[in-house]
Amino acid sequence: MSRWQPHARERLERAALELFEEQGFTPTTVPQIAARAGLTTRTFFRHFADKREALFGNAEASSEQLERHLMEAPATLSAAALILHGLEHTTRYHFEGRKDDLRRRSAIIQSDTGLLERNLQKRAAVRDTFARELTRRGHDTAALHAEIGVLALFTAIEQWLGEDDDRTLFDCVLESLESLRGVVADYSPEPGS
Amino acid sequence: MSRWQPHARERLERAALELFEEQGFTPTTVPQIAARAGLTTRTFFRHFADKREALFGNAEASSEQLERHLMEAPATLSAAALILHGLEHTTRYHFEGRKDDLRRRSAIIQSDTGLLERNLQKRAAVRDTFARELTRRGHDTAALHAEIGVLALFTAIEQWLGEDDDRTLFDCVLESLESLRGVVADYSPEPGS
Repeated sequence: MSRWQPHARERLERAALELFEEQGFTPTTVPQIAARAGLTTRTFFRHFADKREALFGNAEASSEQLERHLMEAPATLSAAALILHGLEHTTRYHFEGRKDDLRRRSAIIQSDTGLLERNLQKRAAVRDTFARELTRRGHDTAALHAEIGVLALFTAIEQWLGEDDDRTLFDCVLESLESLRGVVADYSPEPGS
Repeated sequence: MSRWQPHARERLERAALELFEEQGFTPTTVPQIAARAGLTTRTFFRHFADKREALFGNAEASSEQLERHLMEAPATLSAAALILHGLEHTTRYHFEGRKDDLRRRSAIIQSDTGLLERNLQKRAAVRDTFARELTRRGHDTAALHAEIGVLALFTAIEQWLGEDDDRTLFDCVLESLESLRGVVADYSPEPGS
């Protein structure tokens, strides 16, 4: 018997999503997920460290992919252009065409404190990836650009998942940045203060 | 014997900070912290749920205090003015005059993944407090204003702790907002796009 299971990762992710929806995140066990996917617990642990990771997909791999994508971008890009370059890549490869699954996943994340924490961590990881590459390129506003980039992304995700029009996630990102410009302008110093 | 211990909370926080510095966060136990403070483990657990909380101070109480302060602010304030009002209060009451302790605490937080997660959670809690009150007042950019508020605060904290001049934390907050304006302006849509 071969150890290789076709689409094992995808089957496990799908089984986990279904079970979390049917019976909640906390009561669901790894053996249940493996059984639903028709695989063994051992196969589960070849793909994921725990059941939380079966919900978050391969976060490490996507971080590495984003990092490579940023590193390969032209050296002449401004900080903002590099952030947009990364956001366009991330939205296209990790979000587009998966709205329904991501919406189901989002509902499960909202139901559990530990998952919300994991989500914050994920946001921090994307931010750090941006900040590292901007710093490497010598942009002195690296940290703030990275923060604005993830803020635009995560705000856009919420909006995109909440609506049923045919805008892309990247359209929503650009719109978030536009709204942020308006919001930040409200903090202009008052004359004389 | 009275159960009341004068300044028990402060003594426990100080003992925890010292022990985390001397021997690291992970190896330090609650009984050690209680012993260093000259108190019992039971007293420790009357004040903190776990050793992590002894480092983060009374986060819940400060959240409630911020919430009350925002609710009591004039109804005529703009979203930005309300955020500034809350930030001025928070920086004055929870940060000013404590730079040295906060710097020591920050070094410990940076050393431990769980503490970094807790810190992200704290940031999210402040954001949610801002967003709730802005929403209650009917500001439609509540979520974004709340995000910008905590972003300015947490960026300013890092800068303030890193420097030895006599600027207040609130000065640094205003400066962060100024820098954010510059950064966000970099994302202006290109003509024709």
